[in-house]
Amino acid sequence: MDKNDEIFMNRAISLAKKATGKTCPNPLVGAVIVKNVKIIGEGYHKKCGMPHAEVEAINSVKNKDDLKGATIYVNLEPCNHYGKTPPCSLAIEQSGIKRVVIGMLDVNKKASGGAEYLKSRGINVESGILEDKAKKLNEIFIENVANKKPFFIMKAAMLLNGAIAVKGGVSKWITSEKALRFSHKLRGVYDAVGVGINTIIMDDPLLTCRIKGYKQPKRVIFDANLRIQTSATLFSKYSNNIYIVTSRYAEGSKKRVLKAMGINIVECDIQNGEFDPVDLSHKLLENDICSCVIEGGSRTHGYFLKHGLYNKAYLFYAPKICGSYGAFNVVGSDAPSDLNNVNMLNDIHCKNIGKDILIEGYF
Amino acid sequence: MDKNDEIFMNRAISLAKKATGKTCPNPLVGAVIVKNVKIIGEGYHKKCGMPHAEVEAINSVKNKDDLKGATIYVNLEPCNHYGKTPPCSLAIEQSGIKRVVIGMLDVNKKASGGAEYLKSRGINVESGILEDKAKKLNEIFIENVANKKPFFIMKAAMLLNGAIAVKGGVSKWITSEKALRFSHKLRGVYDAVGVGINTIIMDDPLLTCRIKGYKQPKRVIFDANLRIQTSATLFSKYSNNIYIVTSRYAEGSKKRVLKAMGINIVECDIQNGEFDPVDLSHKLLENDICSCVIEGGSRTHGYFLKHGLYNKAYLFYAPKICGSYGAFNVVGSDAPSDLNNVNMLNDIHCKNIGKDILIEGYF
Repeated sequence: MDKNDEIFMNRAISLAKKATGKTCPNPLVGAVIVKNVKIIGEGYHKKCGMPHAEVEAINSVKNKDDLKGATIYVNLEPCNHYGKTPPCSLAIEQSGIKRVVIGMLDVNKKASGGAEYLKSRGINVESGILEDKAKKLNEIFIENVANKKPFFIMKAAMLLNGAIAVKGGVSKWITSEKALRFSHKLRGVYDAVGVGINTIIMDDPLLTCRIKGYKQPKRVIFDANLRIQTSATLFSKYSNNIYIVTSRYAEGSKKRVLKAMGINIVECDIQNGEFDPVDLSHKLLENDICSCVIEGGSRTHGYFLKHGLYNKAYLFYAPKICGSYGAFNVVGSDAPSDLNNVNMLNDIHCKNIGKDILIEGYF
Repeated sequence: MDKNDEIFMNRAISLAKKATGKTCPNPLVGAVIVKNVKIIGEGYHKKCGMPHAEVEAINSVKNKDDLKGATIYVNLEPCNHYGKTPPCSLAIEQSGIKRVVIGMLDVNKKASGGAEYLKSRGINVESGILEDKAKKLNEIFIENVANKKPFFIMKAAMLLNGAIAVKGGVSKWITSEKALRFSHKLRGVYDAVGVGINTIIMDDPLLTCRIKGYKQPKRVIFDANLRIQTSATLFSKYSNNIYIVTSRYAEGSKKRVLKAMGINIVECDIQNGEFDPVDLSHKLLENDICSCVIEGGSRTHGYFLKHGLYNKAYLFYAPKICGSYGAFNVVGSDAPSDLNNVNMLNDIHCKNIGKDILIEGYF
């Protein structure tokens, strides 16, 4: 691998990141066009429905003659299908670009094949440059396509022994200001935030992002029996970005009232007395929720862990510890009787956030 | 403060540390004698009953004339009483040393007063140099003297949500090799390791330090009703360093059998159905247990936390998480109903230890 290839691929990845949280259900893609070891054009995919990164980069080159013999760096394989825009493979071929350097091949079968097409047209194609980084960049997109489910993030604030609330359910506030701010950023970065109905009843949260410059997340409430009150605080703002996941058997008149308030009612199949995890995943994806931060509570984390739905965890630990009898543990589900049957995380890291500690990891 | 004063005090502290874990019930003390910005003598307190650091340092100077007008650096106030050795204050005065630089004043009223005595003899005395570091060095000694109790360390290995065992009590092995090794080092550094009788019954541990070059800890079992079996594995090695804390009402014949095996029986008062924490602390101190790593289990940590006995925590988290219903939480005691009534830690830090994470902090 050429050292320059890495430099330009890194640039493509940096460009792609500019649209973080805005491209769902599309991937993050950046493209850099280079001639004689000099960048002559750049672009990235800004939003679903807008031009792809390769086209943005090609269009950014004023003198189209410069494209002849140039190299394009793109973190994801150029698409090869007519979607909302024509195939990028065709645009590259027609531009006169002679070398295409790719971070990772597309996992989406509908759009992939660009690399093969370009090779068949006599263009020099190399893929797998900074592949791990390219895959991490599009971890959400990969999960959506490969497993047909949103990228689910477990987020919890707890005591050092896993308690998220003491006796009686009191949970305000376990962690300090800085950890709270970090949590709000997560809401602003991922598509949605989700909580179980018990959290709404106990804490009556707003679930918005309270940091300037960040977008508001969609807010998802898991409420099979539609126990939510129309007076809940979260309805006071942005009601059209609220999604209540419920059963088709829940009270119809309440559904109508909520719909009239602008709230989205998502009907999900029930299986063994809980949401069918496959249907739940599909329904969220259908609503353009590609990533969702699950903030709890206990039963909700228990459900997502039990069904192996989580991809990533952000676990905040306050410098506190207390008796567990009568406290609410972060995972409200049955323990296994075999230590091999627990949920495993990889690549865990920790850091101090103010007075608290954050442990991050991937499932 | 003189920059040189810090350098020489740091040296005194380094010398003192050489005897870590060996001086109980005495403090760690190092001394450095300096003349014309050059170290001419050094010493440290090696073991209870052996000479004090100041005397070691004075004795290390070959030509006693060199001591005239010299400065001595010592991390703890020189003693002023006749204990197992004569007062260091006297030895300093007689040596001709003209300046005494002290890290921290002695908290032990019986031995303190050295600074005042030396001043009264016309010697220049300065104290509080690197005081925080000096206090941290002797955190065990300070706790012993100030609160008349051992320095108790909470040590636990758990899942990310505080489970130390899954259903049925299975707990082997939660953390990986490197964390285990770290735990063994703790056993080798502190005076003793302590566990509840349930841990002995469930896990049948040896509780020794399995790392070369480290000392063997005293092993303390909290067993009010003397449920321990004489066949327990821990009796197979070093039985004279085992201390079974029990009630005076526990079966006399079993006590006699255990004593005949060389095991120490420590009778402790019972209050409200559990060990009286004050008597328990005194009894351990009487047995020269100045520091004790409590390794659990659940009920034992619950007891120590409830009574506010812990000074420090080493909490290991494996990259695993599981349902809490039926699991054993690290703290087996009642939760409070007010978040202000939890045990608080200060100065917490985290780091990766192999695949696991260690969170350290002070109560």
